[in-house]
Amino acid sequence: MKAGIVGYRGYSGAELVRILEKHPGVEPVLLEHRAEGGAPCPLLHPTGPQTLPCDPEIIKAEGLAVVFLATPPEVSMDLAPALLAVGTRVVDLSGAFRLGTPANYTAWYKAEHTQPDLLAEAVYGLPEFCRERIPAARLISNPGCYPTAANLAIRPLIDAGVIDRTAGIVCDAKSGVSGAGRKPSLTTSFCEVTENFSAYSILKHRHVPEVLMIAGLEEREFSFTAQLLPIDRGILETIYFRATGVKSADDLIAIYDRRYRNEPFVRLFVPGRVPDLHGVARTNLCDIGVTYDAATGRAVVISAIDNLVKGAAGQAVQNMNLMLGFPETEALL
Amino acid sequence: MKAGIVGYRGYSGAELVRILEKHPGVEPVLLEHRAEGGAPCPLLHPTGPQTLPCDPEIIKAEGLAVVFLATPPEVSMDLAPALLAVGTRVVDLSGAFRLGTPANYTAWYKAEHTQPDLLAEAVYGLPEFCRERIPAARLISNPGCYPTAANLAIRPLIDAGVIDRTAGIVCDAKSGVSGAGRKPSLTTSFCEVTENFSAYSILKHRHVPEVLMIAGLEEREFSFTAQLLPIDRGILETIYFRATGVKSADDLIAIYDRRYRNEPFVRLFVPGRVPDLHGVARTNLCDIGVTYDAATGRAVVISAIDNLVKGAAGQAVQNMNLMLGFPETEALL
Amino acid sequence: MKAGIVGYRGYSGAELVRILEKHPGVEPVLLEHRAEGGAPCPLLHPTGPQTLPCDPEIIKAEGLAVVFLATPPEVSMDLAPALLAVGTRVVDLSGAFRLGTPANYTAWYKAEHTQPDLLAEAVYGLPEFCRERIPAARLISNPGCYPTAANLAIRPLIDAGVIDRTAGIVCDAKSGVSGAGRKPSLTTSFCEVTENFSAYSILKHRHVPEVLMIAGLEEREFSFTAQLLPIDRGILETIYFRATGVKSADDLIAIYDRRYRNEPFVRLFVPGRVPDLHGVARTNLCDIGVTYDAATGRAVVISAIDNLVKGAAGQAVQNMNLMLGFPETEALL
Amino acid sequence: MKAGIVGYRGYSGAELVRILEKHPGVEPVLLEHRAEGGAPCPLLHPTGPQTLPCDPEIIKAEGLAVVFLATPPEVSMDLAPALLAVGTRVVDLSGAFRLGTPANYTAWYKAEHTQPDLLAEAVYGLPEFCRERIPAARLISNPGCYPTAANLAIRPLIDAGVIDRTAGIVCDAKSGVSGAGRKPSLTTSFCEVTENFSAYSILKHRHVPEVLMIAGLEEREFSFTAQLLPIDRGILETIYFRATGVKSADDLIAIYDRRYRNEPFVRLFVPGRVPDLHGVARTNLCDIGVTYDAATGRAVVISAIDNLVKGAAGQAVQNMNLMLGFPETEALL
Repeated sequence: MKAGIVGYRGYSGAELVRILEKHPGVEPVLLEHRAEGGAPCPLLHPTGPQTLPCDPEIIKAEGLAVVFLATPPEVSMDLAPALLAVGTRVVDLSGAFRLGTPANYTAWYKAEHTQPDLLAEAVYGLPEFCRERIPAARLISNPGCYPTAANLAIRPLIDAGVIDRTAGIVCDAKSGVSGAGRKPSLTTSFCEVTENFSAYSILKHRHVPEVLMIAGLEEREFSFTAQLLPIDRGILETIYFRATGVKSADDLIAIYDRRYRNEPFVRLFVPGRVPDLHGVARTNLCDIGVTYDAATGRAVVISAIDNLVKGAAGQAVQNMNLMLGFPETEALL
Repeated sequence: MKAGIVGYRGYSGAELVRILEKHPGVEPVLLEHRAEGGAPCPLLHPTGPQTLPCDPEIIKAEGLAVVFLATPPEVSMDLAPALLAVGTRVVDLSGAFRLGTPANYTAWYKAEHTQPDLLAEAVYGLPEFCRERIPAARLISNPGCYPTAANLAIRPLIDAGVIDRTAGIVCDAKSGVSGAGRKPSLTTSFCEVTENFSAYSILKHRHVPEVLMIAGLEEREFSFTAQLLPIDRGILETIYFRATGVKSADDLIAIYDRRYRNEPFVRLFVPGRVPDLHGVARTNLCDIGVTYDAATGRAVVISAIDNLVKGAAGQAVQNMNLMLGFPETEALL
Repeated sequence: MKAGIVGYRGYSGAELVRILEKHPGVEPVLLEHRAEGGAPCPLLHPTGPQTLPCDPEIIKAEGLAVVFLATPPEVSMDLAPALLAVGTRVVDLSGAFRLGTPANYTAWYKAEHTQPDLLAEAVYGLPEFCRERIPAARLISNPGCYPTAANLAIRPLIDAGVIDRTAGIVCDAKSGVSGAGRKPSLTTSFCEVTENFSAYSILKHRHVPEVLMIAGLEEREFSFTAQLLPIDRGILETIYFRATGVKSADDLIAIYDRRYRNEPFVRLFVPGRVPDLHGVARTNLCDIGVTYDAATGRAVVISAIDNLVKGAAGQAVQNMNLMLGFPETEALL
Repeated sequence: MKAGIVGYRGYSGAELVRILEKHPGVEPVLLEHRAEGGAPCPLLHPTGPQTLPCDPEIIKAEGLAVVFLATPPEVSMDLAPALLAVGTRVVDLSGAFRLGTPANYTAWYKAEHTQPDLLAEAVYGLPEFCRERIPAARLISNPGCYPTAANLAIRPLIDAGVIDRTAGIVCDAKSGVSGAGRKPSLTTSFCEVTENFSAYSILKHRHVPEVLMIAGLEEREFSFTAQLLPIDRGILETIYFRATGVKSADDLIAIYDRRYRNEPFVRLFVPGRVPDLHGVARTNLCDIGVTYDAATGRAVVISAIDNLVKGAAGQAVQNMNLMLGFPETEALL
């Protein structure tokens, strides 16, 4: 089977190519959306995936089973309808189809949604919580990087009723620079980032509504800050809340264990030990660790992923595996 | 006047030398506490400060006005009495004399305090809140790096009564690696730190009681996590709380402005803009910025310092300036 | 088949485990040489390779086909005889068996060689130039990281006679910090390395004789400087010489092309483009690019590898593949 | 006195402001050349230098003694004539006026020189070798960063006749990213630079002719490669040659010592020790160290500077001090 990638020059797109090249059942095809004047391959004997124009008729003729859109939301909204019309399934890595309703999209993305029908049809591709709807989906909306780490950490505790929601949940999130994409900007220039650390979109990041939606929270219950780490890749979120109805960190880990025991991509840390970013780099894993102070009920959960893998390309391939009937972990372990 | 530095090979000690070399009224003297077998100066025509043994009689004979202890707490407890006995004033950069009582020290530092009388006498050297007692002090306990950034951000709001303490305050702190000192360890090895980010001492860092003490909080009201940034220097703290009795970020900044208008080392950011670590690197400044969501009362304060300057050596020189009658900003602006 | 790894906690050893876990024909086994008091696995449901004591009888009983020694040279000299005695084949990643004679070893490693017979028997494991002797070898001496990049770049040009040896060859080498191993030291501490760059072992690095030996050079013809890059992994060598008998960069690349056309791990760059370290990170590739100034005959060759892969663990697995009859590229592409 | 800075938002320009703010005899003035829409100062109580339009009449009226042009060469050629016409002296940090003749400029900068008369008049501002002409100059051409480190290392040895020029000199140069300026580009984006290292302009960098000019070399005698270090600031050059007429590293250092004994900004290292970039960061120093192999005559000189200080803004202020009659080291030590 062939899988096309639009936006393969970007960091998420390049990661998709890297992962799919290891996949025994799928051949990646680079789809050239715009003549970007990119550098020709500098090797004397170049190798690498096939390249095709991003044209629905050609994509149909070549029999691509799925196309990944590693593109900005406005480009995804533009490309998805024609691709679906020729029978190709689509995994969209942008925020275009994540928020359920046009009003919600407009509120957070400050733009009109041009494909409300597809927005209604799209399936949110967080397999750990939405697995059953993925195999039959035509259009998968791949989750945001921050919400993936947050929802995997928060949702099981909300479901178990052990978070005191009146006191609120704080999610202090830190991301590597690749999360900002490959387009040059002063904000992501080396000299501005190295030996620095800074916050942005405090309390109003556009990834917030994905957490509210999946974890079932109100905006007033969830305080989120995004911050830029001077590293290439990785997201670590430090999540604070008051726990009720538990006596120990072991009780909290046991809740996760019941939920994730059979999940191949969630790893739980023994209380007393906490995840870091080296542990998840270049993997599709989400590592979770818990600290709890029994005297006061305060709890801290650390959730770590690679923003380009479980936070983007890896999860997209996980969704593709479910859509096309491959083992869910193919090319990902 | 001469000022001695014990521990001048460490990062805080070296920063003290760097600052004092710019001070027009003070000459730094390196005090050799132990034969550390350090490398001889590699320059053909070496220059640099005088070196003396760390011997109280020699220190007295040379007329050192003050000695900085950039040493571990057990070394500071060992050295301080003899130095004070020969009439030298002491600024201690360790945690030895910060926590008021031997019981408090033992609870957080897991060791016995051998100098309870000096502990009782020591003045906590956070000039913005303890300035009046510093000029006459024999022994200054220089504040910890994390508490300096936290207290400058939290105390004015506690005093103004605008924090909903029942919901608690979350302080998510990130520090550069120099905060861990110069002694080699796997934790601070380059390959372990680069492209990584990790949390430690979650909810139980030994700097917590300094915040409780200065800001006047209960432990259950204050959740603190320390985290290691892959950078040399800088501390940024992201502080979350629910505000009461304010209507806007401007109201919160106005509270800071009333308190800090005449403070030379605290800078306030216009709401909408937030501090980063480049803004404070190699300065004695603390930068503070505020975000507020009026609909829900949630607030986020960002506080940034250089851990080796306002968090250690710079604040120590600020204290020395107050003790010896120099302008408070000498060598620091 | 099982393959043991001594020194699996080090960077090269850990990379061996990572590579072998992808190998369909070999199962990695961690050999515990000394009780290092390492941290137990922090996962709630730990997985990972089998661990055994590094005991020749146990290794024999478990039927390990090969043991990798990712250990210092003195440990390798200590362990190799007993392993070979029980019939296990050995790939040694240290410098213990690279230099042919005890005198040469003593001259560069400043220590006595305790296993001269094994030194004479050992096969230098640079497959691109020594492939024929590897399958039958009992003991492979895996090449040093710097010499691998240097010899792959220099040897074909020496063989072709296009280097003016009277003018000498300059090899300016830069390595990531993982090349220095995992043992904590001030030299490799984060704060000493970040935002820094420094040279060491100028003109007398112990890897020099491997280049003289393989490329067939005299010491006076080859000037080598090792330098520490503030990165985790990667070696880039900038090699300067005067070319004779060629007219263009294309002529130089053609020489490489004749030699390497069928080599799976050497990639040649079109003249005008040069390799960098991102291109080889986490791969077993050596990338080579050429610049030539026809007016003056000056030439510059850039050679880049990942020091932990083609410079250590990857090449060791490449050797193992040849020894055990697997495809040479298994687990490496 | 007032000193204007055009291009104060760039890295060299900002460094100029930082240095001049410490200068007791000069007040920096920011000259707004183009409405760049830069961010307003985010501080509640902003401070900082005066800002003026970059208008020659206003500059004359305000009595600016000197204007620094931290601008691209085409902007410098555009601005310099009008500034000189109103009697302001100019220190240009670009390459516009460095290469003596229009033909030389065109050959290396691939553009026409529009101010040949000023090019002829400009004085090359490397004080260690051109000090006598600087005080009376109207227009100083501040040296390039790479040539400053190279010429300070090479020229004394050329003058002493101890370099075998037939074998050629190799200068392998590495620079921090700030040398590429502040304009965003993919080449200097964080994710492209971190954990990477790459060469550019091999054998044909436009800084080469400055070395040929000052050191008195032919192009065929000097092989230069520029390389990008994953750091903010610093240049280290590793210089290889065959020495003649010397017997030891001490002999080489003695040559430097005779030349530089009274130079405040050149430091010489004891043989056996070599400079690194931490030693020169944020200083106007050039550190030089020597390695020599007596058996073969091969020598390696390491030369290190901060590209933004001795390689740009610091040297520019050094030139200004000489032009305006201040002590040469004012604001620089």
